[in-house]
Amino acid sequence: MKIALAQINQTVGDFQKNTEKICLYIERARNQNADLVVFPELAVTGYPPKDFLDIPAFIDENLKALGAIADRVYGISAIVGFVDRNKQRHGKLVHNTAAFIQDRRIASVHHKSLLPTYDVFDECRYFEPAHTISPVRFMNSLLGISICEDIWNDEEFWPRPLYELDPIENLIAQGANVIINISSSPFAVEKHDRIRLRMLIHDATKYKVPFIYVNQVGGNDDLVFDGNSVVIDARGRLIAQAKTFEEDLVVVDLENPEVQIQPRSYSPVETVHMALLAGLRDYVKKCGFRKVVIGLSGGIDSAVTAALAVESLGNTNVVGVLMPSQFSSQGSIDDAVALSQNLGITYKIIPIKDVFETYQKILQTEFEGMPFDITEENLQARIRGNIIMALSNKYGYLVLTTGNKSELAVGYCTLYGDMSGGLALISDVPKTMVYGLARYINREREIIPQNSIAKPPSAELKPNQSDQDSLPPYAILDGILKAYVEEARGIDEIIRMGFDEKVVREVIRKVNRNEYKRRQAAPGIKVTSKAFGSGRRMPIAHNFLC
Amino acid sequence: MKIALAQINQTVGDFQKNTEKICLYIERARNQNADLVVFPELAVTGYPPKDFLDIPAFIDENLKALGAIADRVYGISAIVGFVDRNKQRHGKLVHNTAAFIQDRRIASVHHKSLLPTYDVFDECRYFEPAHTISPVRFMNSLLGISICEDIWNDEEFWPRPLYELDPIENLIAQGANVIINISSSPFAVEKHDRIRLRMLIHDATKYKVPFIYVNQVGGNDDLVFDGNSVVIDARGRLIAQAKTFEEDLVVVDLENPEVQIQPRSYSPVETVHMALLAGLRDYVKKCGFRKVVIGLSGGIDSAVTAALAVESLGNTNVVGVLMPSQFSSQGSIDDAVALSQNLGITYKIIPIKDVFETYQKILQTEFEGMPFDITEENLQARIRGNIIMALSNKYGYLVLTTGNKSELAVGYCTLYGDMSGGLALISDVPKTMVYGLARYINREREIIPQNSIAKPPSAELKPNQSDQDSLPPYAILDGILKAYVEEARGIDEIIRMGFDEKVVREVIRKVNRNEYKRRQAAPGIKVTSKAFGSGRRMPIAHNFLC
Repeated sequence: MKIALAQINQTVGDFQKNTEKICLYIERARNQNADLVVFPELAVTGYPPKDFLDIPAFIDENLKALGAIADRVYGISAIVGFVDRNKQRHGKLVHNTAAFIQDRRIASVHHKSLLPTYDVFDECRYFEPAHTISPVRFMNSLLGISICEDIWNDEEFWPRPLYELDPIENLIAQGANVIINISSSPFAVEKHDRIRLRMLIHDATKYKVPFIYVNQVGGNDDLVFDGNSVVIDARGRLIAQAKTFEEDLVVVDLENPEVQIQPRSYSPVETVHMALLAGLRDYVKKCGFRKVVIGLSGGIDSAVTAALAVESLGNTNVVGVLMPSQFSSQGSIDDAVALSQNLGITYKIIPIKDVFETYQKILQTEFEGMPFDITEENLQARIRGNIIMALSNKYGYLVLTTGNKSELAVGYCTLYGDMSGGLALISDVPKTMVYGLARYINREREIIPQNSIAKPPSAELKPNQSDQDSLPPYAILDGILKAYVEEARGIDEIIRMGFDEKVVREVIRKVNRNEYKRRQAAPGIKVTSKAFGSGRRMPIAHNFLC
Repeated sequence: MKIALAQINQTVGDFQKNTEKICLYIERARNQNADLVVFPELAVTGYPPKDFLDIPAFIDENLKALGAIADRVYGISAIVGFVDRNKQRHGKLVHNTAAFIQDRRIASVHHKSLLPTYDVFDECRYFEPAHTISPVRFMNSLLGISICEDIWNDEEFWPRPLYELDPIENLIAQGANVIINISSSPFAVEKHDRIRLRMLIHDATKYKVPFIYVNQVGGNDDLVFDGNSVVIDARGRLIAQAKTFEEDLVVVDLENPEVQIQPRSYSPVETVHMALLAGLRDYVKKCGFRKVVIGLSGGIDSAVTAALAVESLGNTNVVGVLMPSQFSSQGSIDDAVALSQNLGITYKIIPIKDVFETYQKILQTEFEGMPFDITEENLQARIRGNIIMALSNKYGYLVLTTGNKSELAVGYCTLYGDMSGGLALISDVPKTMVYGLARYINREREIIPQNSIAKPPSAELKPNQSDQDSLPPYAILDGILKAYVEEARGIDEIIRMGFDEKVVREVIRKVNRNEYKRRQAAPGIKVTSKAFGSGRRMPIAHNFLC
């Protein structure tokens, strides 16, 4: 049996283009003499469709599209992810389903059994789980068709399974001798190598059957999908792997596979770099933009953001804006100019001093006799936010904000100031990882000025300011944040890890108190196991300090 | 049996104060010779605790608090909502549970069976459902203890039950002769009278047993809880009802109830008014603020917001700011001043003309030869946003934004401009309902100047602007929005309701395209059946136009 893995990049709700692409890949797979072509989870609608699933017209369009796709399935069979209606008298209105299509008709449907409802996933919100599952005969095989989470509950692999049911065990018990899994499994750093691939190899070895894993690729809002679709043979050997962060069609003859492959291995910083490029490219394109504008401070965060944007979109689609104040050092201006020249992007210099002074004048009576404080610092950031939004409004640029995860965690950023923009590209990248990205970007030649990397970070909103005036060193801050935000550890446990108690309490207090800022932040690209945003839902009004 | 309904207002994660309040109500109930005192769902933690439930230390604190509460239960029994650990080897780590406490010990625990996972609810994200349930002997009764959603699945009452299981039917089948339900059931206009109370009366009548329903009260972020705890007797008669939007302790002798009562009935506008007052009061208090600042344009939205704030917080805790531009009419300024005087609040006048001109000067080279457009309109709104945030930063005021739901739906508002602030008080109130609130606020004397109500709405961001230049009349807009947003109807269905096709398509296109603005909006107080925010989760990047 020759199986084609169609690793495609869909847009939520773009039924026409999604259908066209699926039909194109069916044709390409048929041209390569595949017997079966397999598409990712919810390939028809794009993933995640979120609350569009509550709109009956959206479900109708998806069913119509599936019908049009089925019509093109001849001389090959296909497995296509779509949204099916729940025909029972109770429960959620729809299922997350795989259609098994043969000779222009839907031969069987296979609903998802396990519905992830944690982190960024809300599937119990929408879907009714499968009530029964069964394998399906195809050529000489009995295919066990499963959907994403269905393979993530092996009681030997996981220390504590999340679900009572194991659909794979169930399918195998019914005689399935090939497991097919269609997925939309988002990227997180090290997830593919360390978890997903290990798990698939474990399961294939355990059950002595091949696993065909087809994942979606590309970005949808905050989520980016790495692809990395694979075929594992019945001896647990990796015999095919699709590209990372690119569309791909991989055809494998299960009876006569090529020899075991060793896929190209990427370092964590390389995969994060690829994830950010893919996430940015798709957000810009799927939102209908072409160009982006970025405020350049001369610091490392905006430099990394601009370098990523140029690599993702091309230097003619990136505009830089320098908005110096009286507190900006000449060095910072020089660094931002050097960066722009290294990247070959258009840059503009718009000083904010006059506007800042005019604000101070109109607020003079009001603030008479009160000292310069966070008010004036924020005001400068907000003037910059206004200018960059004016450029966005006038020219139709998408604004990229440049804040990193460490700042966002402790609220070291200004609402309606540097937080103004449509996409917060590196907002899930901890500061220590920003340095790694900068070094990686400079691996062949200096793109980001060395000075932007080497100098002590500063917001430059008052004289002689340094980030370390108000925050612990980033290596320590990021260690505490990883323990608290990503690993949900309690204060006592974090202190036992060796961090200073006073610092730990102060950091966690800041994280908990700054939820209101994050609630109004632009979406970012999730690259860690726990990003702020839809995967971390915290109350604003509360009184829990750990 | 004398039962006390303890309708209390808790703060998420404030274990000390929550415990103190529960102990106080235990004592008050004991002093009134109650045999049993019943508290709302998750009374120990506050509701909704959201992702604090993922932090083990949060669960520990809640268990410690429950222990301290149990210690105070003597001479009375108590039912208290808390978070229990799931002792099984798989599944979610915790249950949403009611503790039945007698003589200082937890005699039994009762887990929630049905976990709402739709709209603002995410309970499958956190909780493992009950695997078995059973009633508990108390005095001469067999109590069926249930939690919120558990009573919302009667197959006779609902056209299509959401769950296969009906825990109430199950408890009754096991002999329960009193049903107790502890809830945290958020307010939506007309929900109590039209749904909740009707359902409870239906169920009591059907099963011929009394229903004791105890609901939380008060605001937590976007959700506000109306209380309205009730006792329905075995003949389906309402024999007790606690206050609306206030804490209360109601003691009922089930064997000798008072005669049937007729609770005070409120009109929809009255309940929305109460909900907004309670939501604002608690958001301000639970976030640690005292005073609020509001930009006053002379229009109806900011007038209603200011009037609600004064009623909720007192006139000494509300500051108004007028920020006129060259496009502001003298009438608008006069109306805002008159409003401030009617409300007895401090107001400041800070004209934005100088700052606006300075921005135009520094952007002159950049925008040379390009016409005045949305850029300059937004810039004015953003200058106002900056000024009001400067006042917030300098004095520690919470900023209330003043946009209504109709504007937010179609994006008729400026990110980082009039959307700047900590709470968007009326962002779930459609414009047509804003008029109703204004008339209600003016029911005894003119508080909101008649002119603010009567004049055609305008953003006053360019000469002779009117909302109806870019939007259909609000009565039509709100009709379409209700059908699309609240009722999730498709375009064809909405057109069949009698709306013009072109208008419907344009409105829905605007709603779908402006998700990016709402993603960065301040939280608002949910008063309708479907608010923007956590209850409506839409992708930003998509291509679905209905």
